[in-house]
Formats: sequence, structure tokens, C-alpha cells
Amino acid sequence: MSQSKSRGIFVSFEGIDGSGKSTQARMLADRLRMAGHEIIATREPGGSPGAEEIRRLLVEGDPARWSAETELLLFTAARRDHFERTIGPALELGKTVITDRFADSTRVYQGTTRGDLRALVDQLHSMMIKREPDVTFIIDMDPATALRRTKGRDMEESRFEEFGLPFQRKLRDGFRELADQEQNRCILIDGTGTASAVAGRVMSAWDQRYS
Amino acid sequence: MSQSKSRGIFVSFEGIDGSGKSTQARMLADRLRMAGHEIIATREPGGSPGAEEIRRLLVEGDPARWSAETELLLFTAARRDHFERTIGPALELGKTVITDRFADSTRVYQGTTRGDLRALVDQLHSMMIKREPDVTFIIDMDPATALRRTKGRDMEESRFEEFGLPFQRKLRDGFRELADQEQNRCILIDGTGTASAVAGRVMSAWDQRYS
Ligand SMILES: Nc1ncnc2c1ncn2[C@@H]1O[C@H](COP(=O)(O)OP(=O)(O)OP(=O)(O)O)[C@@H](O)[C@H]1O
Ligand SMILES: Nc1ncnc2c1ncn2[C@@H]1O[C@H](COP(=O)(O)OP(=O)(O)OP(=O)(O)O)[C@@H](O)[C@H]1O
Ligand SMILES: [Mg+2]
Ligand SMILES: [Mg+2]
Repeated sequence: MSQSKSRGIFVSFEGIDGSGKSTQARMLADRLRMAGHEIIATREPGGSPGAEEIRRLLVEGDPARWSAETELLLFTAARRDHFERTIGPALELGKTVITDRFADSTRVYQGTTRGDLRALVDQLHSMMIKREPDVTFIIDMDPATALRRTKGRDMEESRFEEFGLPFQRKLRDGFRELADQEQNRCILIDGTGTASAVAGRVMSAWDQRYS
Repeated sequence: MSQSKSRGIFVSFEGIDGSGKSTQARMLADRLRMAGHEIIATREPGGSPGAEEIRRLLVEGDPARWSAETELLLFTAARRDHFERTIGPALELGKTVITDRFADSTRVYQGTTRGDLRALVDQLHSMMIKREPDVTFIIDMDPATALRRTKGRDMEESRFEEFGLPFQRKLRDGFRELADQEQNRCILIDGTGTASAVAGRVMSAWDQRYS
């Protein structure tokens, strides 16, 4: 176990749209709560009142009014606030923090849409956020299957329409590459099958690491 | 002249509150316009619609809700937008851009309120903004005299009440130090006397540099 006993464990879920991050984050939270963990469940973008305010700048109005660089600064500001106000204090109190998306989403989305910004994303992260999760579950699955899952969901919530399958394929590759580069931190989880089948995989990876 | 002929000149005015930056920026703009320059007059915080939106996050609501680091990221995002949308395009067209405050204000205010952040301010600037003004006029004067000038102005506009003379003295020292460190770029202007006396000093420094 890579943590000192007095500090909480910081967990993130990552993966393409519709892969099941939110479902798996919730299921892990439930199971760990039953096992006696104090859990803070949070998500990005958002996760603190200030981060939500910054998020509104990004999602309201014409999104094309921000350049990728300005957007990156705004995302980093929101993440800094999220970490300071929500994640950091909970970890200090020894709670287990489970976040639905964190910095890897910026790395992979940014790296896919504007590859030349990837180095900047990493630099900004190490200057302004510093901390990485202790463990990141990357839910891996075929985008076409993920798309079928999200069918019937609110159009507004689904970004498939906006970006399309080829884009989701590139994102998937990006997440897999990240899992390969960060083997100590990232665990690639097969996202196919029922939600409980996937949760079983997450839980057995958890047990291997933390018991 | 340190510029290639095809690109505009980028000028900033800096100095403590009430030192006469806005007055001198306007007077230089008028004089250069008469001399045939195409002038874009702008200011920070703000200077572009996006930067104004970000600025509202900083000035509205409880200012204590942001940490100095988050605030710095938001200021940098606003400056990035200001540069991309307003300053950069005007310089490309060969216009002379005169801005009332720019990055030096962040350096000096941040360096005074949270000295440990000064290195971070510089790092973020060189990553995300890169460009410095070609010439920066730092209007230097005794804070007590500047205070007397702002008497009678809208309370809301004056930040003296908020920070007090000792703080303004530290800012003044910060600006003088900067002028010392950046002698190629910064020109310290004696801010005492009438507005036209000060404008005369600015103009003669300008002529020495650009004719
Ligand atoms: N293993 C599964 N099998 C079938 N459907 C699933 C499975 N896991 C989740 N779902 C359903 O698929 C949809 C997407 O799941 P979920 O919202 O958890 O994904 P997500 O990765 O959080 O998506 P987004 O990126 O849009 O936030 C939901 O309607 C969810 O109920
Ligand atoms: N040389 C001068 N002598 C007397 N009054 C002056 C002089 N220059 C400017 N003023 C007046 O002093 C006040 C402050 O000047 P100004 O607004 O130009 O300063 P500033 O540095 O832009 O202030 P702020 O930091 O608050 O924006 C104004 O009311 C202005 O008219
Ligand atoms: Mg989700
Ligand atoms: Mg002014």
C-alpha cells in the first residue's frame, strides 16, 4: 500500500464517453462505504462551487470564443479549486475520495484535439495541481458499444453527436496509451459485460492493491 | 528601434494606484495618434469580451472564495484572451497598442501579497503569454501624493481604503525593483507635477527610443 495510514486514498475513474465511469464510481463508493470507508464522491468538471462557476464560463455562451490555451487555463483553475476545496481537505481527514474524471481527461481530450498542447497540459498540472490520484481506473471499451449504451439518454448529455465515433476511437487509444505510460497508477478495466461484472473487475483490482 | 518595421509597438503603463497610468496612457495615445500612429488603447483586467467575463468571476461575489493560485490562473486565462483577441491581432496589423496595466501588475501585486508566488507568476507568463511589452512606462510617485489625487474619486474605484498606504509603499518598491531588473524594457517616469509635465517626460523617453 503506497499511502501513509493517516491520509485518505485518492481514486479517479476515466474513460471515453458512456464507458461507465459514473456507474462504476458509484458502485465502488457503495462497496467501500459498506466496508467502512468514509467516502467523498465528486466529479469533474465541477466538484466545488468555484469550479462550477468556472465551468459555467466554459459551457455557456459560444464555446468557440475560447482558444484551447485559454480553455486549458480555465480548466486548470477549476481543477485547482476542486482540489483545494473538496479533494485535498477530505484526503487530509483520511477520507477516500472517488472522482468521476480528473486530470487524465484533460490530457487525453486535449492530446486528441490539439496534440501540440499535451506538454503544456502536463507542465501546468505539475505546477498548479501537483497531485495525481493514488489509483486511476480506466474503463476501456469499444466506442460503438458505449454509444449503444448511451442511446436514449438525453441528447444534451451525450457528446457523441458532437464528436462522432472516430473521435471516440482516438480518445480510447489515448486512454490506453496513458495506462501504458502510468502503470503504477492506472489500471485498465475491461468495460464490457454487465455493470456488476465490471464492478467485480474493479473490486478485485482494488483488493489486490489495498489489502 | 527593437521592432521590425512591419509589426506594431506594444506599450504598457504600470504603477501604484492613482499614480496617473490611465491619464498618461490616454495622453500618449493622443500624441501618437497626432503623429500618425494607429493606436489601440486597452487595459487590464479586461480588454476583451472573454477577459471581461473572467474578470467578473474575480470581482463579483466573495473575493476570498478564490485562493491566490486559482486567482493567478484566472488572471492568466484573462490575459491570454486579452492578448489573443485584442493585443496580438492589432500588433500583427502594425498598430501601436497601449495598455493600462499588463503582466507587471500581477508580478508586483502578487509578489507583494504572496511573495512565494512570484516565481509561479513568471513561469505561467512565459508558458502561456510569452510576449512582454516592447516598452513599459512605470509611473513612480509617493503613495501619499497619489492618494491625495484620488481623493474625491468614487470610493469603489479606489483601492487605497482596502489596502492602505503601507501596502502602496510596498507596491511602489516592487515596481522600482522591476524597473531595475528590466532596464531594457522598463522606463521609470517621475510621476510628480502636472499631468502635462509627466506627459512631457513620457514623450521625451519615447522620442529617445523610437526616433
Ligand atoms: N456495464 C453496463 N452495461 C450496460 N449499460 C451500462 C453499463 N454501465 C453503465 N451502463 C449504462 O450506460 C450509460 C452510460 O454509463 P455511465 O453514465 O456510467 O457512463 P460514463 O462513462 O459516466 O458516461 P459520460 O462520459 O457520458 O459521463 C448509462 O445509461 C448507464 O446506466
Ligand atoms: N499629474 C497629475 N496631477 C494631478 N492629478 C492627476 C495627475 N495625473 C492624474 N491626476 C488625477 O489623479 C487621479 C488618478 O489618475 P489616474 O486615474 O490617471 O491614475 P491611475 O494610475 O490610472 O489610477 P488607478 O490605479 O486607480 O487606475 C485622477 O483623478 C486624475 O485626473
Ligand atoms: Mg458520467
Ligand atoms: Mg487607471
